Amino acid sequence: MRFFMPTRLYAERNCVTNHAAELARLGTRALIVTGGKSSKNNGSLDDVAAALGKTGCVWSVFDEVEENPSVETVMKAATVGIDMAADFVIGVGGGSPLDAAKAAALMIANPAKGADFLCRGGEPHNAPLPLATVPTTCGTGSEVTGVSVLTYHERRTKGSIPFRIFPQIALCDGKYLAEAPMSLIINTALDALAHLVESRLHSSADTFSLMCAESGLMGWGRHMGLLGVECRPTLKELDSLMAVSSIAGMAIAQTGTGIPHGLSYALTYEAHIPHGRACAVFLPGFIAESGGEGERVLRLAGFAELEEFKEFIRQTAGTVSDKELLGLAAESVLASPAKLGTAVFAADRESVMRIALSAAE
Amino acid sequence: MRFFMPTRLYAERNCVTNHAAELARLGTRALIVTGGKSSKNNGSLDDVAAALGKTGCVWSVFDEVEENPSVETVMKAATVGIDMAADFVIGVGGGSPLDAAKAAALMIANPAKGADFLCRGGEPHNAPLPLATVPTTCGTGSEVTGVSVLTYHERRTKGSIPFRIFPQIALCDGKYLAEAPMSLIINTALDALAHLVESRLHSSADTFSLMCAESGLMGWGRHMGLLGVECRPTLKELDSLMAVSSIAGMAIAQTGTGIPHGLSYALTYEAHIPHGRACAVFLPGFIAESGGEGERVLRLAGFAELEEFKEFIRQTAGTVSDKELLGLAAESVLASPAKLGTAVFAADRESVMRIALSAAE
Repeated sequence: MRFFMPTRLYAERNCVTNHAAELARLGTRALIVTGGKSSKNNGSLDDVAAALGKTGCVWSVFDEVEENPSVETVMKAATVGIDMAADFVIGVGGGSPLDAAKAAALMIANPAKGADFLCRGGEPHNAPLPLATVPTTCGTGSEVTGVSVLTYHERRTKGSIPFRIFPQIALCDGKYLAEAPMSLIINTALDALAHLVESRLHSSADTFSLMCAESGLMGWGRHMGLLGVECRPTLKELDSLMAVSSIAGMAIAQTGTGIPHGLSYALTYEAHIPHGRACAVFLPGFIAESGGEGERVLRLAGFAELEEFKEFIRQTAGTVSDKELLGLAAESVLASPAKLGTAVFAADRESVMRIALSAAE
Repeated sequence: MRFFMPTRLYAERNCVTNHAAELARLGTRALIVTGGKSSKNNGSLDDVAAALGKTGCVWSVFDEVEENPSVETVMKAATVGIDMAADFVIGVGGGSPLDAAKAAALMIANPAKGADFLCRGGEPHNAPLPLATVPTTCGTGSEVTGVSVLTYHERRTKGSIPFRIFPQIALCDGKYLAEAPMSLIINTALDALAHLVESRLHSSADTFSLMCAESGLMGWGRHMGLLGVECRPTLKELDSLMAVSSIAGMAIAQTGTGIPHGLSYALTYEAHIPHGRACAVFLPGFIAESGGEGERVLRLAGFAELEEFKEFIRQTAGTVSDKELLGLAAESVLASPAKLGTAVFAADRESVMRIALSAAE
């Protein structure tokens, strides 16, 4: 049994402003890593810049992080950081900027190394620069994990880099979701649900990871009603969704993710299905394979039975009818013994195919 | 809402041996801080010495930590550490050696400062030396908190030092409890229960602390049956009791303790009542004051109603009949507005006296 989650997490209104002094303790020259638009629109980038200005830090903004960021984008961000002699990194946005920020923090600290090192690791290297994260969605959990998932165009898929890079500080403020489209809230909340389900049903689950996963599933269940397209959660409800998402991150920080995440990458790479939906479409099939443990997960999340859960996923995540694509997704998981070993059931060709094809139902 | 618990926790058989290389990463010259006897008898000291020997570290043992260690003892340990040029500290044992080790790690790093600094803080200082902890009881939680509680003879009581010193590593192995007297297992498990109840019913409880406290209460309830004097838990059950104790530590690392801990210090200082029992005798009265929230705590821990819980505490912790002593305990809490503010009810003279005197029932 193990527990490790060293990030100092603040989840409160105006936490970026309130904890500016702690941000500034990470360094004096910040590279801000973010996406093209949303962090400018939701106020998070302004808050970070104001906090840095107040404390006398200098900073540059790299705002070219695309959804499912590529290794190439990270290398570009690292070059900006190296050129400005950044001594810390701040990731602002959804999972994509946060994951890119982690990888950039590593590469800025290792300026002589290239993309090959980032993708394959295995060499002595300097510790990554200190890192702060400001999440603006309610799904990634990246603010409290060491994981960075990047797109490898050469492999035509996504995958985790072989490094664990935990942020020193996570600053989580639900106000950044206040104007977000409902589709983004739903997509990312489905990602959080997938984290919770996959951690709860993970072969390496233990007392400490179950603490996070079960608490998170119950919390998720209490907020499920907020996820209709016609809904508009209050600011307080958005705070709660963000906190559940962070708890889901703590859960996968202990166990890692499981088969649904493994299956999702092909759907996102090949068909541009948003990450949360791409994971969620496999959850009913995954739970069905997990027997009694799966039933317990449904109850924790507030579902009476599998059929009710399937219907919920159909309505929020939709279905994927392209069976060729689903087969491709299955093959990519079947090629990874490590991924198969994360299941609490014997994950063989038949069961993985059943889970993959259940997304079409 | 906040979460911070940076310690890397391993809870597994032979973890001291398995993670020797990680211990050695903390430094090359270790001061081991422990008590006079139990760590020699239960094998933990031998395991630590063997792990250090294997990795080429040198070490000295300070084995004079008494129960409820005094500031004087810490200063003595620090002198040993300074003389040997220790660059990291390992606390081995129950809460007393672990708390003393934290304070010693601070004082060795600040050799020019004296006991007054340790007790009052408030001056610029060096960071404490890196610290590892090897708990050998199932109650303290100190292995995953930043808290160090010392005895201040000049104030005739116990109290937390004004520093937060988290261990880098906690190595928790239930085998060190295999030969422990049942009274020690019961006393320390009652301390863990007090941590869980006080964190769950704390005015600063939030989503993250409740995750720990509620998960811990449910886990504690599942193991309650192991705590009869006639019982002898299996090794696996001792592992579970230790894990629950660590979860309880994570809970108080977020909220701090509450009124029962505040009341306990006078009982331990004046009447030498073991810490876990001294806290537990106040739990029924404390829960009774906490209304509906208190009832929820009882249910989480597996008790049908308050009377059943009272009887359990009477049997495991006993009662305290000295009303003068209970009055003294109440006065010490009433003198601390901060402690009164931790309650979820309006803690005034009447309610605190009711809780204190309920220990006599």
